[in-house]
Amino acid sequence: MSKAVVPGSYDPFTLGHRYVVRRAASRFDEVVVTVVVNPNKQGMFGIAERLELIAGDCADLPNVRVDQWTGLLVDYLVRESITTIVKGLRSETDFAYEVPMAQMNRDLADVETMFMLTDPKFSHVSSSLVKEVAKLGGDVTPFLSSHIFDRVQAKLTGERTA
Amino acid sequence: MSKAVVPGSYDPFTLGHRYVVRRAASRFDEVVVTVVVNPNKQGMFGIAERLELIAGDCADLPNVRVDQWTGLLVDYLVRESITTIVKGLRSETDFAYEVPMAQMNRDLADVETMFMLTDPKFSHVSSSLVKEVAKLGGDVTPFLSSHIFDRVQAKLTGERTA
Amino acid sequence: MSKAVVPGSYDPFTLGHRYVVRRAASRFDEVVVTVVVNPNKQGMFGIAERLELIAGDCADLPNVRVDQWTGLLVDYLVRESITTIVKGLRSETDFAYEVPMAQMNRDLADVETMFMLTDPKFSHVSSSLVKEVAKLGGDVTPFLSSHIFDRVQAKLTGERTA
Amino acid sequence: MSKAVVPGSYDPFTLGHRYVVRRAASRFDEVVVTVVVNPNKQGMFGIAERLELIAGDCADLPNVRVDQWTGLLVDYLVRESITTIVKGLRSETDFAYEVPMAQMNRDLADVETMFMLTDPKFSHVSSSLVKEVAKLGGDVTPFLSSHIFDRVQAKLTGERTA
Amino acid sequence: MSKAVVPGSYDPFTLGHRYVVRRAASRFDEVVVTVVVNPNKQGMFGIAERLELIAGDCADLPNVRVDQWTGLLVDYLVRESITTIVKGLRSETDFAYEVPMAQMNRDLADVETMFMLTDPKFSHVSSSLVKEVAKLGGDVTPFLSSHIFDRVQAKLTGERTA
Amino acid sequence: MSKAVVPGSYDPFTLGHRYVVRRAASRFDEVVVTVVVNPNKQGMFGIAERLELIAGDCADLPNVRVDQWTGLLVDYLVRESITTIVKGLRSETDFAYEVPMAQMNRDLADVETMFMLTDPKFSHVSSSLVKEVAKLGGDVTPFLSSHIFDRVQAKLTGERTA
Repeated sequence: MSKAVVPGSYDPFTLGHRYVVRRAASRFDEVVVTVVVNPNKQGMFGIAERLELIAGDCADLPNVRVDQWTGLLVDYLVRESITTIVKGLRSETDFAYEVPMAQMNRDLADVETMFMLTDPKFSHVSSSLVKEVAKLGGDVTPFLSSHIFDRVQAKLTGERTA
Repeated sequence: MSKAVVPGSYDPFTLGHRYVVRRAASRFDEVVVTVVVNPNKQGMFGIAERLELIAGDCADLPNVRVDQWTGLLVDYLVRESITTIVKGLRSETDFAYEVPMAQMNRDLADVETMFMLTDPKFSHVSSSLVKEVAKLGGDVTPFLSSHIFDRVQAKLTGERTA
Repeated sequence: MSKAVVPGSYDPFTLGHRYVVRRAASRFDEVVVTVVVNPNKQGMFGIAERLELIAGDCADLPNVRVDQWTGLLVDYLVRESITTIVKGLRSETDFAYEVPMAQMNRDLADVETMFMLTDPKFSHVSSSLVKEVAKLGGDVTPFLSSHIFDRVQAKLTGERTA
Repeated sequence: MSKAVVPGSYDPFTLGHRYVVRRAASRFDEVVVTVVVNPNKQGMFGIAERLELIAGDCADLPNVRVDQWTGLLVDYLVRESITTIVKGLRSETDFAYEVPMAQMNRDLADVETMFMLTDPKFSHVSSSLVKEVAKLGGDVTPFLSSHIFDRVQAKLTGERTA
Repeated sequence: MSKAVVPGSYDPFTLGHRYVVRRAASRFDEVVVTVVVNPNKQGMFGIAERLELIAGDCADLPNVRVDQWTGLLVDYLVRESITTIVKGLRSETDFAYEVPMAQMNRDLADVETMFMLTDPKFSHVSSSLVKEVAKLGGDVTPFLSSHIFDRVQAKLTGERTA
Repeated sequence: MSKAVVPGSYDPFTLGHRYVVRRAASRFDEVVVTVVVNPNKQGMFGIAERLELIAGDCADLPNVRVDQWTGLLVDYLVRESITTIVKGLRSETDFAYEVPMAQMNRDLADVETMFMLTDPKFSHVSSSLVKEVAKLGGDVTPFLSSHIFDRVQAKLTGERTA
C-alpha cells in the first residue's frame, strides 16, 4: 500500500495546500496531512484547531487523515512506516529552500521527498501572506475554504475586541 | 494622467532608490514615493524624518511627491485612484521575493506592479546593508546623497553618545 | 502622452501576450506591439501574418497598434520617440534572461524596460511550447484566441498535406 | 496499483538516472522508463540500443520495465492509464526548466509530475556532459554502469576508426 | 606570498567548512579561518570554543591558522594586509546571498571574494541545520568531525540537564 | 608559486574579461588566459587573432600570458601543473551554468574552480551580445578596449563589403 505524508505548519490550511493534498490523494493509497509542531512559535491557531480545520477541508477525501508531530519529521515517518514525503512548491525559491531539508531527510532515514507544483493560481498564496493580508483588512476569500475563512475572521475579530 | 506609486520603507532613502524614482518620474506624469509604515518595526529614522529626507533628495523632480501609508498598500492606491506600483529590482532574488506580493495586489484590486532594474552600480545597495556598514564604521558615501549621509552619521553619533 | 513598446517575435501571439498588452494598454496612452524580425529565423507565420493576427486579437483595444522592426530595438524606439519597453515575464528564468538586454538598451539609448508579470494561468505558455504541443496533436485552445487557434491548425494541416 | 513513468532521452542512461529510477521503484508498484523519441535529433545510441542499455542496468529492479514513445508524452500516459510522471532534478535550473512542461501536462491531461532530487554526487551529471567529456578522452567511469561505459567507449572507438 | 581569509560564524565548524578550508589551503600560502563575531547573537559555542574547535580540526593543515574579528570584515583584511576572501558555496541561493556583501567589500576596500563550491555531499549542510537536527535527536555524525560531534553532544546534554 | 588559468572562448575579449583577469593577476603569481578552441564553432575571430587581441589588452599586466587549448580543459591544467581555474561571473544564471563543469573538473583531476564577480557595470556584457549589437550598428565602445573595438569594426566592414 503506497503512503505519503504531506507535512506543514498549516496555520491555517489554504486552498493551495488543499490542491496538493487532493492531487496526492489520487496517487497514493493513503495520505497523512501532518501538522509539524514548532514549540517556539505561537501561531494564529492552536494545534488542535489546525487539525480540526484540515480534517474539515479534507472530509471529501476518504484516504486522507490528519495527524501532528513534535520533533524530527523522519522519526515520524519511521514510526508510521512511511517512506515518502510530498511537498507542494509554489516557485523556484520554494524549491531552493526545500532542497537541503529533503537531502538531510535522506541522510537521516530512507525517506524520499517528492515535489509537486501547486496550482499556478495559488502560486503566491502562503499561510503567512494570507494572515498578513487578512489582518490589514484585505479580502482573502479566494485563498481559503469558506469554513476556514470564517474562522480566520473570527480570530481577527477576537483579537480586535480583546 | 499617468501616475505611479513607488512604495518602500526608505530607512533611509538611498541613491539606488533615487535612481528608480528619477527614471519613473520621466515616464509617468506623477510619481508618489510612499513610505509604507510597519507599526511593529522600529527604524533608524522616524516616518516624518524619512519623508523629509526623501523630499529633500527629490526636490529637483517636480512631478514627485512624498506620502505615507499604514495598512494594505492596495487600499492606498484605490484611495489615490492610482493603478500602478513601480518597484526597483536589484537582482533575481529581489524579483522572486516581490512576485507573490505583486500577484496578491492584482487579486486584491486592479493594481499592476511594473518592475524596473536599479542601476547596476547600486545592485548591492539596500538600506539595511548601508546601515549595517555605517554602524561598523564603513564609508557609505557612495550610496547616499550627502544630505542623507550627514543625517545617518548624526544618528550614529547620537546613538554612541547616548 | 505616455507610450510603450511591447516587443516580441509573436509567432504566434498567445493569450499570455494578450494579457500583458491589455494591462499595459490601460496604463499607457499608446501601446505599440512591435514584431521584431529575426532575418535568420524562419517562423510558422510570416511577418505580415503575425501583424494581422495581433491586430485582430487587439481590435478591442483602441490605443494599441501593431508594427514591425528589423534591427536594433533601441533604434526603433528612438525613431518613434518612445522611451519605454514593456516586457511580460512568466518566471524568474524569464527575468534572468531579459536583464542583460534591458541593461544594454539603457547603455545604447535612454530606454527603460518595465517588467510586468503575466497571468499565472499562462505562466507556462510560450509561442514555441504552444507550437510544439500543437504539432504533436495536443489541444492548445486554452492558450490562443479562437481566431489564432484556427490559423495555427490551418498551418499544421497545410504542412501535413504539403 | 500505483504506477509512474520516468521519461527521458537516455542517450545514454547514467547512474544519475539509475538512482532516480531505483528510488521511484521502491515507492511505486510499477515504474516504466520511457525513452521519448525526438525524430529531429540524432543521438549517440539508436532507440533500440538505449532500451537495451536501460533494461540491462535495471535488471535487478523487477517492477521496472522499459518502453519508447514518439509524440506527446501525455498521450502515452493516457494510453497506459498512468497519471504520474517522475522527473529527477539536479539543480534549481533543472527545476525551472521542467516547470512549464509539467504545467502544460496538467492542462493537456490529468497527469501529475512528481519531482525527485538526484543523488548530490551526480548533481553535475547529464548524458550530454558525459558524452562531451568522453569524446575528449576524459574518464567517465564514475557516471555510468560498467556495461554502458563499455558501450560508450565502443561507439567512440567506432567513430574514430570510421 | 598569497594569503586568504575564510570568514564565518562557525557555530560549529562542519565538514563542509573543513572541505573548503582544505582546498583553499592547497592553493594559498596562508589561510586564516576567521570567526566573525556578531555581538547581538548568542551561539551554541562561545568564540574561544569555536576557535579551539577549528584549530583542532585543521591541525593537519600547517598553513592554516585561526583568528577572530569583531567589526567590518574589510577592516580586518586591511589590518592583516590580505586582499582575498574565500567563501564556500553550497547552492545558487548561497551565491545570490553572498553577492551584495562581496560587491560591498570591493567598494569599501581592495578586497576580492573568490567563491568555491563545497563538496556536493555537504551541499545541504549548514551549522544551523546541523544544530537543529542534533537538538531533535537526529544523527549528525556524517557532517562533523568526531571531535566536534562529541562537543555538540556534550552541549546538548548540558542543556537538557541544566 | 600560485598560478591560475582563466579560460574562455574570448571571441572577442571584452572589458568584462579584462576586469576579471586584472583582479586575478594581482592575487596569483601567474595568470594564463587560455583560449579554449571549439573545433565545431566558427567565430568572428580566428584563434591566432584572439590570442593577439588578448595579449595586446593585457600588455600592462606582466604576470599574464596567453595560450590556447583544444580538448579537455583539465588535461591542459595537468600539463601546465596548474590546479586552479578562475571564472568570472556576471549573474546567478552564469553561476548555475558553471557549477556542473566545475564539479566535473574536480572529478576528472585535482582542479578547483574559483569564481569571481565581474564589475557590475559589465554584468550584462558578453562577447556574443557585443557582437550582436555591433552587427546591428549599436555602439559597443563602452565594452571593448579601443584596440579591440577597431578590430571588430574592421571585421564588420569586411563582412559588409565582402
